[in-house]
Amino acid sequence: MDIVCLIFDGITALDAIGPYEVLSRLPGARFQFVAPGATTVRSDNGAVCWTAEASIEQVSRADLLLVPGGIGARRLMSNPEVLAWLRALDLTTQLTASVCTGALLLAASGLLQGRKATTHWAFLDTLRELGATPVAERCVRDGKYASAAGVSAGIDLGLSLALELAGRDTAEAIQLSIEYDPQPPLDAGSPDKVGAALRQALFDRIRKLDKRAAAEAAERR
Amino acid sequence: MDIVCLIFDGITALDAIGPYEVLSRLPGARFQFVAPGATTVRSDNGAVCWTAEASIEQVSRADLLLVPGGIGARRLMSNPEVLAWLRALDLTTQLTASVCTGALLLAASGLLQGRKATTHWAFLDTLRELGATPVAERCVRDGKYASAAGVSAGIDLGLSLALELAGRDTAEAIQLSIEYDPQPPLDAGSPDKVGAALRQALFDRIRKLDKRAAAEAAERR
Repeated sequence: MDIVCLIFDGITALDAIGPYEVLSRLPGARFQFVAPGATTVRSDNGAVCWTAEASIEQVSRADLLLVPGGIGARRLMSNPEVLAWLRALDLTTQLTASVCTGALLLAASGLLQGRKATTHWAFLDTLRELGATPVAERCVRDGKYASAAGVSAGIDLGLSLALELAGRDTAEAIQLSIEYDPQPPLDAGSPDKVGAALRQALFDRIRKLDKRAAAEAAERR
Repeated sequence: MDIVCLIFDGITALDAIGPYEVLSRLPGARFQFVAPGATTVRSDNGAVCWTAEASIEQVSRADLLLVPGGIGARRLMSNPEVLAWLRALDLTTQLTASVCTGALLLAASGLLQGRKATTHWAFLDTLRELGATPVAERCVRDGKYASAAGVSAGIDLGLSLALELAGRDTAEAIQLSIEYDPQPPLDAGSPDKVGAALRQALFDRIRKLDKRAAAEAAERR
């Protein structure tokens, strides 16, 4: 099974590393990171410097395509080469999946038109504007399209795909090997679990960054 | 706050990226990855190619030192330069933390002598052999030493440190920003939650890989 994961400047690293840590453990999996243009990219905050195995032009098929998010995904939404590559690669996949705002990138490419999908909680309305039907759930599936909510949800998505692709024993072994028995010290991982003021402040901050990234991307083209 | 995270060939990427994704969001945090020797490293399965900001000789202090695990941590356990660097850096830290088998590396450096700590479930006995007192909990704290169980437990560790360092509002905002509201499709993330045969097979496989890595490291020196 060939798993291809897009990485790019401004990626949220956990969006990709969560499902990678699960899916790369599937028996027979070949997991490859690919990037548009230069193959060395930096995460959203600059701290992770990461080199892809190949650039997107060198990769023309995948069994599973994985599209993570981050502020850089917003910039790629107006990049016609990346959108065309996503559409072309999707023609070859058994499964096409996104994590966080990776769904916005898939939607911008037209692949989620009229389909149910999810994304980071602060972008569900944006997903609707791009023609998908947003669903506020942890993992959403519509045909071969699988999407996960924000950042850490990619681990749950990875496990649900592992369960589907390789069965219960293998998925259990993977979950135990990464000791995924979550015990967060607080219960604040969903917008309905925090106070309205904190939620609104975070929403405003995230959307402001996104607006700036969209404006920069528009200027550059 | 200067956060320094060791990376190395054979790292389990999620061990580092989990707490990174949490702790790099702390207001005022400067998060830096450092590596021993060559600064470009590859993850345990080779798929993640990652370049550190600096080599360990260039970094002589940290407020928070983070030591992730993976098969490569086993190789470093017999590397005197790395063990000396850990001890020297620890003299400067407010907090010294490990994820997964990063605890074995800290223990090999002598820093966990007589201290309570945890590690990946398959290595709790090894942690005891190295002079620490193993505790089978998700996150364990002894003085300034904080340790997390296997791989994904680093996210919980990161949040507990964020709560301690920056308070509840900030920790909640970080948890919501990474939408950490875990919903694994199976409940197999802890050794007591799976069948004995699956657990034993996985234990044997992991320990066999570890034994081979230890033998290779011994030969090399």
